[in-house]
Formats: sequence, structure tokens, C-alpha cells
Amino acid sequence: MPNPLLLPEFRELLSEGNTETLTELMGDMHPASIAEFSEGLDVDETWQLLSYAPLERQAEVFSFYPPENQEELVSDVGRERMSSLLEAMSHDDRVDLLKQLDEEVVENLLPLVARADREDIRKLMSYPEYTAGAVMTTDYASLPADTTVSEALSLLRRQAPNAETIYYVYVLDAERHLVGFVSLQDLILARPNALVRDIMQPDVVSVRVEQDREEVAQELAKYDFLAIPVVDDQNRLMGIVTHDDVADVMEAEATEDFHLAAAVTPLIRGYGQSGIWSLYRRRVGWLLMLVFVSLLSSGVIEAYEEVLHSVIALAFFLPLLIDSGGNTGSQAATLIVRALATDEVDPKQLVGIVLKELSVGLSLGVTMAVASFFLALFRGGFDVGMIVGISMLCIVLSANLLGVLLPFVLSRLRFDPAVASSPLITTVADVLGLLLYFMVATWTMNWMGTLERL
Amino acid sequence: MPNPLLLPEFRELLSEGNTETLTELMGDMHPASIAEFSEGLDVDETWQLLSYAPLERQAEVFSFYPPENQEELVSDVGRERMSSLLEAMSHDDRVDLLKQLDEEVVENLLPLVARADREDIRKLMSYPEYTAGAVMTTDYASLPADTTVSEALSLLRRQAPNAETIYYVYVLDAERHLVGFVSLQDLILARPNALVRDIMQPDVVSVRVEQDREEVAQELAKYDFLAIPVVDDQNRLMGIVTHDDVADVMEAEATEDFHLAAAVTPLIRGYGQSGIWSLYRRRVGWLLMLVFVSLLSSGVIEAYEEVLHSVIALAFFLPLLIDSGGNTGSQAATLIVRALATDEVDPKQLVGIVLKELSVGLSLGVTMAVASFFLALFRGGFDVGMIVGISMLCIVLSANLLGVLLPFVLSRLRFDPAVASSPLITTVADVLGLLLYFMVATWTMNWMGTLERL
Repeated sequence: MPNPLLLPEFRELLSEGNTETLTELMGDMHPASIAEFSEGLDVDETWQLLSYAPLERQAEVFSFYPPENQEELVSDVGRERMSSLLEAMSHDDRVDLLKQLDEEVVENLLPLVARADREDIRKLMSYPEYTAGAVMTTDYASLPADTTVSEALSLLRRQAPNAETIYYVYVLDAERHLVGFVSLQDLILARPNALVRDIMQPDVVSVRVEQDREEVAQELAKYDFLAIPVVDDQNRLMGIVTHDDVADVMEAEATEDFHLAAAVTPLIRGYGQSGIWSLYRRRVGWLLMLVFVSLLSSGVIEAYEEVLHSVIALAFFLPLLIDSGGNTGSQAATLIVRALATDEVDPKQLVGIVLKELSVGLSLGVTMAVASFFLALFRGGFDVGMIVGISMLCIVLSANLLGVLLPFVLSRLRFDPAVASSPLITTVADVLGLLLYFMVATWTMNWMGTLERL
Repeated sequence: MPNPLLLPEFRELLSEGNTETLTELMGDMHPASIAEFSEGLDVDETWQLLSYAPLERQAEVFSFYPPENQEELVSDVGRERMSSLLEAMSHDDRVDLLKQLDEEVVENLLPLVARADREDIRKLMSYPEYTAGAVMTTDYASLPADTTVSEALSLLRRQAPNAETIYYVYVLDAERHLVGFVSLQDLILARPNALVRDIMQPDVVSVRVEQDREEVAQELAKYDFLAIPVVDDQNRLMGIVTHDDVADVMEAEATEDFHLAAAVTPLIRGYGQSGIWSLYRRRVGWLLMLVFVSLLSSGVIEAYEEVLHSVIALAFFLPLLIDSGGNTGSQAATLIVRALATDEVDPKQLVGIVLKELSVGLSLGVTMAVASFFLALFRGGFDVGMIVGISMLCIVLSANLLGVLLPFVLSRLRFDPAVASSPLITTVADVLGLLLYFMVATWTMNWMGTLERL
């Protein structure tokens, strides 16, 4: 969101054409801050502001604008200007930008971009979404093995302006096979006439170009790397994924799980950018599917119509009982789904977890049974109190177990366990809750009837 | 989880006492890989394995063991050995370790640690949980401003073994005020006799020591920094938070939101490490609170007892209608909660979002109404079909609106919007659903009655 403090200042400086201050600002402020503070400017003002910085800097600031602003800026500017900006941008950022533009705009732009860059762009755009290839960048720093440390440092000085990072350097042979890794720190600490071959680490942790981006982010985070190399099936270096992508990927994956857990097909664009039709489509299928699950609940009520009709007081406690079942199930399912997603528990630990949750469920069930017994006693007398209390115990215990088991079952069936969503578990728990309630009610009434007859 | 392939190999090498291979392995493998592959060893074997590496390396590997393994390793080893390991560990990692040990163990260990380290540990342990101070590390690289670049590089060479990173260097005055920032890349590219003062960036983005760790992670991620400096209210440098902490903080915060959204008070330790009593306590309060919300549903049924008794067929569709309301509300609440958490929408955009969701809700409502009209027509005739269809439209529309508004209301009341959890919204939507259903039913029956009388 635009910073209301600095926006008028920017505007004033621009209308005054205050070259000195603007050049200084564009040079001193962090590109992310410039982008943040100037987000409220219109397209013309933004391009005017950018023109006070050299091309490299313009490209950096541009990368920090939100996607929708970038699109606006592209649609308006002369193609020539945009093509030189694309050449200056970081290789992964420009591909991210081009992916969200209309195909027509891209096809008009690309012929103006230098050939090497154009080929790099086409290559990077060809990797399937959600893979390492689609997240990586190709502007890494590399060295041959038979270089001395001092030669290596001067090679790196030359690569620095075009490299995403020179802190991690990959050692390649003539066919670009990844043969080693050396950090800038290693180079700084080594003797100037040592060979890179002798100080490099020969076993490099890498990921494959077709690997899932979530796995790549987890590897990067596990090793606390600044970047991880991406190789093809011949171990040739194709690109690197850098630390700043980890946060983006993790946030996107968490959002996906949140949406699935609420029975929404994950949005491709953010909520703010999703239209009404797109939101509708991603929700309606799940809602209709859940209607069919709910019909089972209707079936249970129909089967026990007589019981309900004879003791209408039972209906009062319907919401209380089935809600409690759904809530307990949601809690258990979410705890398990999240523990599985963060690799905190292993699917192999199923038995231990079930035993643990039987104890938790029993404790919760007894507490809830006592509470609801008194509530029902107060409103419907001892018989109803007993029925409601016993039902509550059975419902909480079994809904809790259902919540624990469903994620494991889904994961075994190769579904995302996050689908053991609150709406799904709630709706299934309702069927179970109604069934248990009416079973307990008929059984208790029969038993009391028998007692009275004695 | 332990890697079953390498564990027997490690065991064999250890029992053979194969010094050469073990020393080589401990030198060549990444500390994270050593920790991963040796996780299945027992305490004695692990210490034996570690002894094949120099102390610095031992400390690195140790940091990569999961918390519970670290605890085990500490409890068993001689205090002297552990104290030298603590001195070698990264300053934030050792504080993380000590925080989870029993106070008694810590008080026994600390006197054996060198004085400077001991003071650093006590200082870092004193910051409140969830603040920048509690996440930061104090082993940063720093320089005075009036140094030449070549002097700076040799100063950094000396700091390297004890610094978390030398890629980001902070420029301090005599009172440790943060006056500038320079990256190792800047230093490598600058003339050797240039002054640090002239190449440093004077405006440094920093965070305050008492700031929330989530904000710190967001700042770090926003600027794509490797590290962000943490200062006190006098702008004195207190520590740095590094990029590898971002992933940990983000994962922890996402887990917290998942738990809240399922009406579970967030677990302090992971699910695997939480006992039955702890799990019970974090769930029972919410369940009991929701019982009281459900009682409102019972109240609604009681108020409309007559209607229900006269047309018992209405009861069949109760679960269908209230489940659909709850599911729609969950979807909307989750979309909004997540968009707010990722700063994708701004609380100020409320009006626009409400208008958008009125359209989405209307589209969903009409679809669901048509589907349920036919289901009810088939089972209960035209009258019941009309009642169920109209009720469904009203329920979906209003539950959707409730799902949108509740997170905003909670956030205005300074609660975490994630509390607009699925269980809460489902339970509230039930009350609303029942009320709407019975109102529509009585109104429709009256109207039909009037029609027949005409």
C-alpha cells in the first residue's frame, strides 16, 4: 500500500523537475523502499521517476512493484524502453513478469530483446509451473576449476553486475557439469595462488530442474543455503534458486493449504486480483459435493422420524451435539494435517498418534458430556440429560478419531491431506453425530421403558 | 527422520574405529546432512561420531539436530565438553538450545562457559519471546567507518571464523551506533584504498529489538536481505536476524494461524512433543465456549417447536441447510483471513470486498438454491422445495457475508482475525441458518395458507 507521507513529496519533486534530489533519492534509497513509497504514482509519473536512475537501478525498482502495477507500467510504455529494461532485469524476475502478460504483448516485446536474453527467457518460460525450473534464475556466478583464487576474484568482479549473487559460486567443467562449489568467503580466506579445484567442495547438494518447488524451498531452508543449484539429468547446471524465493514459495504453499482446508480450490492469483467468476468457480464445486454428504444426514433423520416425532425435545439438542462433533473433528484434523505438512509427524507413527488421540478425545468427551448433561437436565429432565450426555461422549470420541484418521487416509490415497478440511470433516461428523444421537436415544428409551415395566 | 541407508554404515565405521574415513566424512559432508544421516545413532555413538571433527564443526552439526535430540545429547555428556561446544556454537543457536533445557542444567553449565560468552547468553536469553531480540544473533561482522577497503578486508578475514556471515557488514561508530552498511560485494568491487565511509550506504533499514518477530521476517523478505540489523532505541546495533530465520518464523506463524483457525490455542511445542494434557487444555476451552453458541441454535428450535412438530419433513433438510451455511462461511472467512495475513488486502478495502462477496455469495446462493429445490421437490413436494430453496439462498448469502465481516470485526477489536475460525463461523452460521429456515418456512406456509383460502 502506498506510503501517504512520501507520496506528495515525490509528486512535488517530479513536478518541479528537481533532478538533483531525485537522482540522489533514486541512488540512496533501497529499491524496495522506492517501489513502496512511489506505488501511488500514476503510470506517467512512475516512468518519469524511474528515468532519474540508471537502467540497472530502474530494473531493480521495477521488480519490487506488485504484479498489477508492473502490468500497468508495461502496457503503457514504448516497446523499446521496456525491452532494454527487460535486458537489465534479473532473469527470474523478468520471466515472472512476462508470464502474467498477455501472449500478444509478449510476442510484440520479445523481438526487440537481445538474442541471448530472448533465448534465456523462452527457455525459462518453458518449464512447467511449480517446478524448480520455473522458480530458478540463470544469472548465477560460475568458475572453471583450474583457476587460481586471485584470477577467480577478478572473474567474479566482472560477473558481479549481471549476477544475482556472487557469494555462492559454482565450479563447472567445459560441458557445464557441476563439479564443485566455493563461497566468496572461502575465496577471500584462501591463499591468492591456491587453485579453485583444491579449495572447492566437490560434493554439491543440488536439486533437479523438474523437482517440485516446495521440495526445493525445503532443501534450501534445511541447509541454510543462500542459493541451491538446479541441474538437469546429466548434472549440468541449469540455474539457481535463491534464498529470497523460499519465503515466497512457503507463503504460497501455506496459502494453498489454508484454501484447501476451507474447501476452496486454491486461487492462482491473490484474492485481491481474483474476479467474482473465478472465486465462484473455486468454491461452488466443493459446496455442491458437500450437499450430497449432508443428504446422508437427512437420511438418518428420516430413518429416525418416529423417535423425533415422539420426543420433539430431542430436536433442541441436535445443533449442540452435531456442532460439537464437527468442532472436535476440525481441531483434530487440523492438528494432524499441519503436523504432516511440516514433517513434524511421520505417516508411519499412525498407531502412536491414534492412541494419543483416543486419550485426548476421551478427556474432551467426558468434559463435554458432563457439561451437556447438566444443560439438558435443566431443560429436559434426567432422561434427556442422560441421552444427551452419553451421545456427546460417543460423538466427541468418534469425531476426534475421524479427524485423526481422515488426513492419513487421504494421504494414503494420494490426495493432499489438507483436503481433510473443516467443511468436509464437519459435514461427515454431522452424519455420524446424528446416527449416534438417535441410536443412543432409542437404546436409552427402550432401556428406561424396560426399567419402568419391571 | 533417520536415513535407513547410511545409518548401518555409520555404525560399522564407528565400531571399526575407522578414523580416516570418519574424519573425511565429517569434513566433506554438509553439517545438515551429517545430522540427518546420524539422527538414529544413540547418545554415545553420536558423541563418538562428533569427536572425529574439530570443535567448530561439531558445533555446526550439533545445531542441525532436532531439539529433542539436542536435549538428550546435553543431558548425557560431561559438562566441560558441553561448555566448550557452547562457546563454539552460533550465538542464536546456543540460546535456542539453552532455552529448552531445565533451568538447573543451564545454571550448572553456564559457570564453565567463558565470561564474554556467558554474558552474551544471559543478555540474549533476557529478550521476551516472539521479539526480534529473541531471534537475533550477536555474531555479526562490523567495521569502523574510517578504514580503507583493503584494511576492511583483512579485518573481515579475522572476523570470519566467528561471524554468522561476512557478506553483510555493519559500520559502527565508537559507541556502536549503526552509521552505515556495506556488503562484501561492494568491498570486492571498490578500489583498495577507498574509505569504507565513502562506499557505505548511510541509510540502513533496521528493526527495533522489541519488534515482533513476524514483522522482522516480513521486512527481511520484503528487501530480499541476507540479514537485517536489530538496534535499540539509541540506534546502537544489538544483533542481526539472518535469512535462514525467516523460513522458521514464517512456518511457525502459519502453524499458529492454522491452529487458531481450527479453534485450538496454538501449541508451544510441536504436535509430536505435546502431551495429552497439553493438547486437552488447548482444545477444551474453545469447545465449551462453542457449546454456548450452539445453545442459541437450540433456542431457535425451541421457539419454532410448533412449526417443526406440524411439518416434521422440515427436519430432514435441517443438516443440509445449516451445513451449507457453515461451509460457505468457512470458505469466505478463510479467504479473507489469509488475504489479511499475507497483506494481500488491506482492512481499508472493506467496502469493495463486501460488494465483491455479495456478488459471489449471490451466485453461490442461486446455484445452491436450485440444487436444493430439486432435491427437496423430489422428497417433499413443491411447497417443501420452495421453502428449502428460498432458505438456502438466504442462508448462503448471509453466511458468506458473515464469513467476510467476522475477520474484519475481530481485527478491529484487536483479536487475531484467524480466530474467525471454521468452528466459530460454522457454529454461528448454524444459529443464523436455523433462524432463517424457520422464518422462511412459517412465512411461506402462511402465504400458501392465505393462497388456499382465497
